[in-house]
Amino acid sequence: MLSEFDLIARYFTRPLRAGSSAALGVGDDCALLTPPAGMQLAISSDMLVEGRHFFAGADPYQLGHKCLAVNLSDLAAMGARPLAFTLALSLPDADENWLAPFSQGLLTLADAYQCELIGGDTTKGPRNICITIFGAVTAEQALRRDAAKAGDDIWVSGSVGEARLALAGMREEIKLDETTLQAASPRLHSPTPRVALGLALKGIARAAIDISDGLAGDLGHILESSAVGATVDVDALPFGPMLAKQPEDLRRRFALTGGDDYELCFSAAPAERDAVLAAATASGTPLTRIGTIESVPGLRFIDAAGASIDFPYASFDHFAPS
Amino acid sequence: MLSEFDLIARYFTRPLRAGSSAALGVGDDCALLTPPAGMQLAISSDMLVEGRHFFAGADPYQLGHKCLAVNLSDLAAMGARPLAFTLALSLPDADENWLAPFSQGLLTLADAYQCELIGGDTTKGPRNICITIFGAVTAEQALRRDAAKAGDDIWVSGSVGEARLALAGMREEIKLDETTLQAASPRLHSPTPRVALGLALKGIARAAIDISDGLAGDLGHILESSAVGATVDVDALPFGPMLAKQPEDLRRRFALTGGDDYELCFSAAPAERDAVLAAATASGTPLTRIGTIESVPGLRFIDAAGASIDFPYASFDHFAPS
Repeated sequence: MLSEFDLIARYFTRPLRAGSSAALGVGDDCALLTPPAGMQLAISSDMLVEGRHFFAGADPYQLGHKCLAVNLSDLAAMGARPLAFTLALSLPDADENWLAPFSQGLLTLADAYQCELIGGDTTKGPRNICITIFGAVTAEQALRRDAAKAGDDIWVSGSVGEARLALAGMREEIKLDETTLQAASPRLHSPTPRVALGLALKGIARAAIDISDGLAGDLGHILESSAVGATVDVDALPFGPMLAKQPEDLRRRFALTGGDDYELCFSAAPAERDAVLAAATASGTPLTRIGTIESVPGLRFIDAAGASIDFPYASFDHFAPS
Repeated sequence: MLSEFDLIARYFTRPLRAGSSAALGVGDDCALLTPPAGMQLAISSDMLVEGRHFFAGADPYQLGHKCLAVNLSDLAAMGARPLAFTLALSLPDADENWLAPFSQGLLTLADAYQCELIGGDTTKGPRNICITIFGAVTAEQALRRDAAKAGDDIWVSGSVGEARLALAGMREEIKLDETTLQAASPRLHSPTPRVALGLALKGIARAAIDISDGLAGDLGHILESSAVGATVDVDALPFGPMLAKQPEDLRRRFALTGGDDYELCFSAAPAERDAVLAAATASGTPLTRIGTIESVPGLRFIDAAGASIDFPYASFDHFAPS
C-alpha cells in the first residue's frame, strides 16, 4: 500500500527546473518562490469536485490536464505568465492506476507552460482537486475585469459552446452522433488555456475574463465590474464546426450560456483593432469581434440584421436550485 | 436561496486593508499581490476534509479559525510573515448558519495576523476547505527542514500531546472527566500558530518544522531532510497540564505521536541558547530543550536517567490501512 509520503515522492516530486523562480519545492513546510523583480504576482485557485466538475470514472490523464488548464486560463485572462502552482488532493484511496496517468496529464501540461509544481497537500476523502496557480504580470498591466469603456469592441477567442455540446451529448440531453460527440469532447475534457493570447494582449486589451461559466454570464461580470453595458450580435458568435451544425436555438444557447469554454472574452478600443489582430496572429489564436461596450447598463442581444433578440440567458451558479 | 456570488460577496469580500501587499482582491480572474521588495514568498496549501480532519457538525467558528491557523503554522515554521491567503470551499449547501460563523472565525484570525483573504473558489460538494497561504521571508533566511547539524539542540515550543488527548476524549478512546476534556479541547479546535516565534527565530534556528502529524514523525522529516539523527529525552517533553495528569505511557505516546499540536520543533546550535531563550521571551512563547541532533541516522529516545527507551512511534499517514 502506497503511503502518503511515497505517493508524493513517486508522482509529484521532481527536481526544480533550471532558471525556475521557485527556490524550494515540494517537501518543506512551505515552498519558496522568488517573484521576478518589479512584477506583480497573479494568483488564482480552482477546486474541482467529483460528480460536480467531472464524472466519477473520468479519464485521469485528461482530468490532470483539465485541472491545471482551468487555472492557466485564469492567468491568461489576467495577461500573466505562468510560474508555479500548488496541488491539494483529496482521494478515496492511493490508487496508482489513477495517480500515474493523473500526474502525467497534469505535469505534461505544466511542462508545456514551464509552470512548476512547488507544493501542496494530500489527504484521504471524497475526490477533490484544488490547484492554486501563480503567474507574473508587469505591475499595472494586468487585464482586469473593471477596465471596459463604452465604445470598446468586444472580442472572443476561438469558439464557444462546444464543451457544452459535448456535455449535452454525454448526458443524453440531446442525441449526438458518435462522430460529432468525439469531435466536440476534447473541448470539454482537454481545454487549451489561452496563455499566449493573454500575454500578447497586454497594453492592447482593456478588460478581460476567461469563459468558464458561459459567455453571457462571464461578459456580465466585466459589465458589472466596469459599470457599463453591451450589445452582442448573436450571429457573429464563433460556434466551432460541431456546434455550427446544430439548430439555431441550441447553437445560441450553448454559445452564450454553456460553460467550460476557457476562451478569453475581452474589450479593446476600436483604435486597437489592428493591434488586436496582430496579437491573434502572434499567438496563433483566432479572434472574433462580437459586439460593443455601451454606457447603458445591461446586456442586449441583436441578430445580424440588427433586430433585437430577447434571450433568457443564465450563467452557471453552483448553488442554484437544480 | 443564497447564490454562489451572493455568498462570496456577503461572507468573504472586504475592502483591501490600507498598506496591504495585495493590489487586487476577491472578484477577478486572479488576485494580484505585490511581494515586498527583496523578499521571497513562502507558500503553503492545506486541505481539510469533513470526517477526516474535522467531525461533521464541528463548530463552524472554530473550524474557520483552525483552517487558517494550520496554514499560519506552516508560515511560522519557515519564519515567514503572513501576507495573504486564498480560500477554496466545497460545501453541501449555502447554509448561512454555517457560513456566518465560519467566515467570522476565519477572518477574525486573519485580522489578528493582518493576513488578507484575496481570492479563491466556491463550489457545491462534500465539505472541503482548502487554504493556500502566502508569507514573506528574507531571501536565504527561511527556516528549512534540511538545515539541522549534528550537535544542534532540539527545541519544541509550548506543549505537545493535548490536542490528541482531547481527540481521544471526544472519541471515547479513553475516559476523560469533563473538566479535563474542556481544558484540552481548545488545543484541538483552536490552535495558536507560532508566527511570532518563527519570525524571532530567523538567523538563530537552523532547521524548523511545525508539528501537525506528531512530534516524532515531524522531527523525523527534519532528520531525513538534513541526513542526520537525534536522541530525544522523553522526560523532558513539555506535556501541558491536562496531559501531565495522565499515565506515563499515554503521556509519552500522545506527546510523541499525537498530531494537531501546531507547535514548532527546531534545531539550533548550542552557542545560540541565549538567543533562543531571548526569542522565546520576545515572542511570549515557552520553549523546551528536548534533545540533540546527532550524525548517526535514526531517532532514539532516552529517559531522564539516560536509559534507552524502545518506543514504537508512528506519525500520521492519511493512506495508512486503518
